[in-house]
Amino acid sequence: MNLITPWNDEKEKGRMRRVKRDAILGVAARAFCENGVRATSLDDIAERLSISKPTLYRYFRNKEEMLTECIRKSVEMIDGAIAELAGEEHSSRDRLQAALRRYAEIMTMDFGMCVVRIGESELPPGSRRTLRAHERKTDRIIRNLIAECVEDGSVDVPDVRLAAFTILGALNRICRWYNPSGPLSPQEIADQCTRILFDGLASRAPRKTAARRDRPVEQSRSKYLAD
Amino acid sequence: MNLITPWNDEKEKGRMRRVKRDAILGVAARAFCENGVRATSLDDIAERLSISKPTLYRYFRNKEEMLTECIRKSVEMIDGAIAELAGEEHSSRDRLQAALRRYAEIMTMDFGMCVVRIGESELPPGSRRTLRAHERKTDRIIRNLIAECVEDGSVDVPDVRLAAFTILGALNRICRWYNPSGPLSPQEIADQCTRILFDGLASRAPRKTAARRDRPVEQSRSKYLAD
Repeated sequence: MNLITPWNDEKEKGRMRRVKRDAILGVAARAFCENGVRATSLDDIAERLSISKPTLYRYFRNKEEMLTECIRKSVEMIDGAIAELAGEEHSSRDRLQAALRRYAEIMTMDFGMCVVRIGESELPPGSRRTLRAHERKTDRIIRNLIAECVEDGSVDVPDVRLAAFTILGALNRICRWYNPSGPLSPQEIADQCTRILFDGLASRAPRKTAARRDRPVEQSRSKYLAD
Repeated sequence: MNLITPWNDEKEKGRMRRVKRDAILGVAARAFCENGVRATSLDDIAERLSISKPTLYRYFRNKEEMLTECIRKSVEMIDGAIAELAGEEHSSRDRLQAALRRYAEIMTMDFGMCVVRIGESELPPGSRRTLRAHERKTDRIIRNLIAECVEDGSVDVPDVRLAAFTILGALNRICRWYNPSGPLSPQEIADQCTRILFDGLASRAPRKTAARRDRPVEQSRSKYLAD
């Protein structure tokens, strides 16, 4: 039975509210990327959506809440992409490569861009904390993936922490040089960056070792993973 | 004859002026790195040097002139390092590796750090232009070195521009995570980053081709080098 009950109505209202909130957030992310946080007013965002400022206030208290939400969205995308690949059916190498590729793609999207492009000094303290927590989390995920690859022998680097910083530095930079009307698609960019970065990590590892999951963990490599 | 003449005096005065100016600049770079440009006043810099503000004004008109000079110094260091390696006696591969290593080291120094760490939005328009010109120049140098390596077969990448951006993104990031009291020295950082990045570029190139300078230029690779 598909009775239209007040409860269904509430559910539908809740869904529509989320859809509208996401639409506002998408437009805000684009505006922050294009003009910076300081130069973007709530009026600008309302105007881009052809809604009134009071309507905007029904979804977000202020610009800071929008920024924090943009950061949260970007983290969700990265986490989601990595969670998809969790589990034993994928090798560490496949998971690291997929994470790098997905991270690169996210850096060509408005949410990803607005997280990295916005200078930290432009952020209000609350968003700055969210951003720092996000950076630490992403860094930890990539570091753990690299460490797993070191353990199964598909990557050979003396310092996992340095390797993660190097890779994230290169990928974060995409959102500064990416040009949607340039010659390369987000997928081509993601593929080429992943290839350079993964091959750089793997260059001294023995070839064809991706499946060797039974190799003992090299303890000396793990000392860098304390934090 | 070592006569002390008025001319020698002038020379010595000029030298001392440059020494003092450099000392001010070093202290300014450190302050900009530590506290950001906005939060650093000329009073702070004068205090760190135990000199008066009017003395400071004899060397620099304002904070913007100091910033522009910091950027110029950093560019000089990079240019100098690359110029040292110019000439036929070094292979393209050696020169690219040396440039990456030197660039990485500069990113652990106050001048290099203050150039990258300072958010563009913090800069006055004049310094912003200098910074952008510097970025374009560095990018061009690294891109040309990669292109030479592609030509002699020691590097294999489909897009020289993307490769340069990827590498500079990774290296620029050093000045955000480098910690002078951390476990890795600037030289270790430079070596490990150079290894990851160069090996990533070279991974699909045939091995041991560094000396093959007679290989014809692949025209398809050069289309990205227009700018």
